[in-house]
Amino acid sequence: MTGLATPERLRELFHPASVALVGASDTSGWGRNVYESLRTGGFEGRFVPVHPGHPTVFGIPTVPSLRDLGEPVDLAFVLVPTLSVEAVVEDAAAAGIRNLVVLAAGFGEQGDDGRRLQRRVVERATGHGITLLGPNGLGFINAPARAAPYGLSISPPLIAGPVSLVLQSGALASAMLAFARGHAIGINLLVSMGNEAMVTTADVIEYLIGDPATRVIALFLEEIRESAHFVALARRALEAGKPVVAVKVGRSVAGRRAALAHTGAVAGDDAVVDAALRQVGVIRARSLEELLVTAGLLATAPPLRGRRMGVVSASGGACDIIADRAQEEGLELPDFAPATVEELAEVLPPFTRAQNPVDVTGFGLAHAPAGRTRPVVRTLDAVTRDPNLDFVLNLGVLLPPLRPPDPSVLEQGIDQQAEIIARSPVPVVAVSTTCGDVTEYMRGVLAPRRLHLLAGLEFGLAAVGHAVRWEEWRGSLRPERRPEGPGRATAPAWVSGHPAGAWSETDGRRLLSLTGVPMVPAELARSAEEAELAAARAGLPVALKVSGPGLAHKSELGAVALDLDSPAAVREAYARLRQAAAGEPAVEGVLVAPMRTGGQELLAGVTVDATFGPVLAVGLGGIWTEVLRDVALRVLPVDRTDALEMLGELRGAAVLRGARKREPADLERIADALVRLAGAADLVGPSLRALEVNPLWCRGDEVEGLDVLVVTEGEADLAQGGVGDPGAPGRRPRGGIPPSRSGREG
Amino acid sequence: MTGLATPERLRELFHPASVALVGASDTSGWGRNVYESLRTGGFEGRFVPVHPGHPTVFGIPTVPSLRDLGEPVDLAFVLVPTLSVEAVVEDAAAAGIRNLVVLAAGFGEQGDDGRRLQRRVVERATGHGITLLGPNGLGFINAPARAAPYGLSISPPLIAGPVSLVLQSGALASAMLAFARGHAIGINLLVSMGNEAMVTTADVIEYLIGDPATRVIALFLEEIRESAHFVALARRALEAGKPVVAVKVGRSVAGRRAALAHTGAVAGDDAVVDAALRQVGVIRARSLEELLVTAGLLATAPPLRGRRMGVVSASGGACDIIADRAQEEGLELPDFAPATVEELAEVLPPFTRAQNPVDVTGFGLAHAPAGRTRPVVRTLDAVTRDPNLDFVLNLGVLLPPLRPPDPSVLEQGIDQQAEIIARSPVPVVAVSTTCGDVTEYMRGVLAPRRLHLLAGLEFGLAAVGHAVRWEEWRGSLRPERRPEGPGRATAPAWVSGHPAGAWSETDGRRLLSLTGVPMVPAELARSAEEAELAAARAGLPVALKVSGPGLAHKSELGAVALDLDSPAAVREAYARLRQAAAGEPAVEGVLVAPMRTGGQELLAGVTVDATFGPVLAVGLGGIWTEVLRDVALRVLPVDRTDALEMLGELRGAAVLRGARKREPADLERIADALVRLAGAADLVGPSLRALEVNPLWCRGDEVEGLDVLVVTEGEADLAQGGVGDPGAPGRRPRGGIPPSRSGREG
Repeated sequence: MTGLATPERLRELFHPASVALVGASDTSGWGRNVYESLRTGGFEGRFVPVHPGHPTVFGIPTVPSLRDLGEPVDLAFVLVPTLSVEAVVEDAAAAGIRNLVVLAAGFGEQGDDGRRLQRRVVERATGHGITLLGPNGLGFINAPARAAPYGLSISPPLIAGPVSLVLQSGALASAMLAFARGHAIGINLLVSMGNEAMVTTADVIEYLIGDPATRVIALFLEEIRESAHFVALARRALEAGKPVVAVKVGRSVAGRRAALAHTGAVAGDDAVVDAALRQVGVIRARSLEELLVTAGLLATAPPLRGRRMGVVSASGGACDIIADRAQEEGLELPDFAPATVEELAEVLPPFTRAQNPVDVTGFGLAHAPAGRTRPVVRTLDAVTRDPNLDFVLNLGVLLPPLRPPDPSVLEQGIDQQAEIIARSPVPVVAVSTTCGDVTEYMRGVLAPRRLHLLAGLEFGLAAVGHAVRWEEWRGSLRPERRPEGPGRATAPAWVSGHPAGAWSETDGRRLLSLTGVPMVPAELARSAEEAELAAARAGLPVALKVSGPGLAHKSELGAVALDLDSPAAVREAYARLRQAAAGEPAVEGVLVAPMRTGGQELLAGVTVDATFGPVLAVGLGGIWTEVLRDVALRVLPVDRTDALEMLGELRGAAVLRGARKREPADLERIADALVRLAGAADLVGPSLRALEVNPLWCRGDEVEGLDVLVVTEGEADLAQGGVGDPGAPGRRPRGGIPPSRSGREG
Repeated sequence: MTGLATPERLRELFHPASVALVGASDTSGWGRNVYESLRTGGFEGRFVPVHPGHPTVFGIPTVPSLRDLGEPVDLAFVLVPTLSVEAVVEDAAAAGIRNLVVLAAGFGEQGDDGRRLQRRVVERATGHGITLLGPNGLGFINAPARAAPYGLSISPPLIAGPVSLVLQSGALASAMLAFARGHAIGINLLVSMGNEAMVTTADVIEYLIGDPATRVIALFLEEIRESAHFVALARRALEAGKPVVAVKVGRSVAGRRAALAHTGAVAGDDAVVDAALRQVGVIRARSLEELLVTAGLLATAPPLRGRRMGVVSASGGACDIIADRAQEEGLELPDFAPATVEELAEVLPPFTRAQNPVDVTGFGLAHAPAGRTRPVVRTLDAVTRDPNLDFVLNLGVLLPPLRPPDPSVLEQGIDQQAEIIARSPVPVVAVSTTCGDVTEYMRGVLAPRRLHLLAGLEFGLAAVGHAVRWEEWRGSLRPERRPEGPGRATAPAWVSGHPAGAWSETDGRRLLSLTGVPMVPAELARSAEEAELAAARAGLPVALKVSGPGLAHKSELGAVALDLDSPAAVREAYARLRQAAAGEPAVEGVLVAPMRTGGQELLAGVTVDATFGPVLAVGLGGIWTEVLRDVALRVLPVDRTDALEMLGELRGAAVLRGARKREPADLERIADALVRLAGAADLVGPSLRALEVNPLWCRGDEVEGLDVLVVTEGEADLAQGGVGDPGAPGRRPRGGIPPSRSGREG
């Protein structure tokens, strides 16, 4: 940006020692909320309400304008109506104020007038060197700094800790803080982003990556703006070992509509979002609770480096639930080592098996032998020393709703567990059976012992699954991908200067040949005689199709003929096809290619997502993509390893590997073709709208594209509906695969 | 049973006015727990500890044995060790006691000795007319009756209400009661079933169906025992309008292992469980929280009769989440009617759209115009009157963690909402954004106003989805299915007397002909000449396959020949097939049938589930079943409507309906064939192990089975591994489809 949203400037913004509240009055709910939130957060600095008409607000003397402050404040929180914001920016500048939060709505999210007004406000702020958060945002809460200028009421207590929250819907703050408090998840910084007119989500993420007080970054996203910056930051966070967890809404079409209305955001296609987040190591949570529980785990537990989980519980039913959830999360429950089984045999009550998950039964809880540790604690001790395990899930902590009459028994048991956990060779994760609030009393017991309790098996196991996968992503982090192939700079002039629209198939084939995408041999025939000769060279049977620009749907036009098995049939088809395409302006001729049979057809393409740009897509042909939508996606650039992973992700992967007695396909060769296809998309550059090889035919180690479609946008189109404005109607195909055509006819 | 587990007897068991605790001592954790639980539950009746060695327990004088009680108690809770239980039963009988809870483990879940001991204990109790709950169970909690003899500590307060819980893992009670309390879900009866030696889960369900204090029955199931009884009761509950909600564990293989160890239960195949529960109208919840939140909703809300949901929220982010969750749950968010939009335009803050879900924004919450109702409340009022909606989801209730300093504002807002809800023409469901405990203060505010708050959007929307679908099930309840076709009684002697094992294909075809399952015509040839003549009659090309008992895998044996298109090929194939089957003991001949090409192949069969018995399965052939496991299941009997529903459930249904330019299949005819197939399974009766038509070939309105496999078990096998003992190893195929063979060769 303009140097006003740098980590240094944001550190200053989020640590105000003095705050002015502009537009506060005793009757304004907003003003009251900000004032109360500051008090709840424990703000101890200078606080000045600003109002031209009221001499006091909340019993505190006001100044009429920021210009009357005398000494500038660190932050002005601006509550004035939309149309007065510009003037307040000038006042702030005159007063020497460097940081503003603007709450008013009616800016960028409200049509052209709002957008113009927002641009003016930002220009003024920028000109004065002012950092502006919002507009249409609720402010921020910096718990350790005791600065919580926030536009909605927050309930005490505010628990400080290592999780930072970035919200594209600030109204969720109350519910999220309540849940965090209920589960002793400590908050560092919470930011309501609003319209992101100057300070963007990516800016705040960048700040948090460098913020030593933040151990986990949790996001609520309606839209991913500045996707390239976002992707780079996500990678940097993964490299730095700082997990990013996100709820991204808009999974449903209706969800997209709601998002549109809320912040003027246009959400991208959800499958692309899913793939893109995974690709850059951002954990996607499906609910606010899962987001916070996952953040809480990652902020407190040592790294979970492996999927082998040991479980200690006092309920057989809980063991069953864990076994079910573990399978869903891809976690393993290995058998205990013989030494553990032996040790447990002495500890466990009769009628109990020393198996994983181990159920110490109610007996193990209820039985407290005089002067000896309870079986549940001794079991935990034995299991933590099992060499077959990567970590242990502990259900031994019980949660009394209130302070028990005699807390010593409870606290002694917890002390014993804390001791075992402290000396355990593997991480121990504590979880409760159901999601219930940790009481204030219990928080006081757990916190000093550095114990953190996950909120119930449902969310807790989801969090464990996320944490384990995140460590795997981190462990398999590879150098940043570069586009493979010759690279955009080497694109021949005919490519960069190609007319917009659907390219002729011969041009498409020329493009693919530049990066070596294997294609079925084909000859362009300009007469029936040429076609007959080409067919003889190719070997019968052959396929014929018209080639020419703008022919995106050849089969519908009747411009394709298949399975031609005699010279006469070829001649007849040539004439028929020319006839069918007679109305087309620029037919180049008819392509003649040998028929391919047997094997397996794939669909491979590069689609352009409104948020993430070019995305490689691959799926099996036919029902796999059309009925089952079984498609693997990756934001470009990709390398061969990515492409192989994509093929492995397909539900139909077994078919490629030779299920049902098929000949296995050569996955390496397919992956190679995919990477070359991505390279071709890169050659075309920003004018690309779609590049599709359908089908990509494979039989054993033969891999050949049978048809190609390239669609580009002209410079004029790009200027009108460029990358910066994905909302322009009808400009580009929506995310996902362009409407597919059946079979190999192209 | 023996009249000891009838609703009348269970009512007596669950309402004791006096309790003896046998085996209590000051050092026993179990005894302490039962005593404390009774106190927590508010027990006010006579309580007598029984111990031969201690003169007092918990400061209360003991009697040495039940025989010394003088006047009998209503219930004896038995804590004595496993081997002393028999003697205590005799003591109880002598004392005139009619009800026992037995806590000790080491009975039926522990091998042959345990099973024998359990049988003896039950026989003694039965002989004396004593109702026995357990063994290996923790007792029960009857909240309104203030009787909570329970073996684990329960935390106060215990909130009485309309939800009853039946647990096959009693150790979950603490966590479930804690969650119920946290969300103001009132409990009527909680029962820990233990080994169900006498009183079974089905018995308790039957009691609860007739119990007017129970509005919803919630189950935690490790195994469904007495499935026929269970199915009948589930149907009765649906008819009575009393919802049954269940968590059934064992979704994973590992889950099955844990269940096996815990109660000796063998869980059935999970897909069958899923289908069977849906079929009988039991809601399946995926977590304990979802179970309780769903039960809480069904116990408090008016029926949700439709999927059209209106939403009122003060957070755009929450609207987005709801839109996503609504789509997942199949709920609709229709546009508001014009009158509503008009009304909302006056109420809503500027910059806010009157669309569904409606976001009144922070302004709507924060803005409290003097003397006027807040926008959030007026919005709710307008939306409840919208004619396009079946119900309204309300996020307007805010939850302060503690009693607010000035509760009048909060309570006034809630009063206004309660008033609107009371006069609303459609049900209004209140939900919080995240899952947080309702404080004691808040419970006191909500309960008298008859307001119930669902625990967060994640669980809350799941509950709404369940409730809506349950109303649909209820609304579409059809008369109980009877097996169609001629019925078991009419089975010819050759069917009932058929030797066990894999039947010859000719016998299989004869069986199917009895119920009119359409099959490809086929002739049995006993010589090459007969085969040639049969082929001529069928029309070339033909398929040949050997028919004989025990030939379940003909293609592996080389006993199938396809696509024979000349008399010479038929003769040659006949000779080859006879040669391949030369080692088979009882070859009947070679079946000659015309080849069928094109169209679509289905797999249709009846498999025998260990829990639910015969289950009809249908799927599309090839990858659909083998790779995608896309199979629809129904426990028999089924009717044509069921069969049509099954076809509609398949992910591949679009293929049958004519996707990808295929000819649509005649679904009515396929459904007819399925019902006839089920009828054939019914004819065979309990000896059936598998009946499979694979493929069932369809092309347009042609539907024909091309191959049939029937496997039965002999009387000797049945006696050894009968239906009552599904654990017998290697007796029967596990649930699901028998290992499938490829193509049509059979």
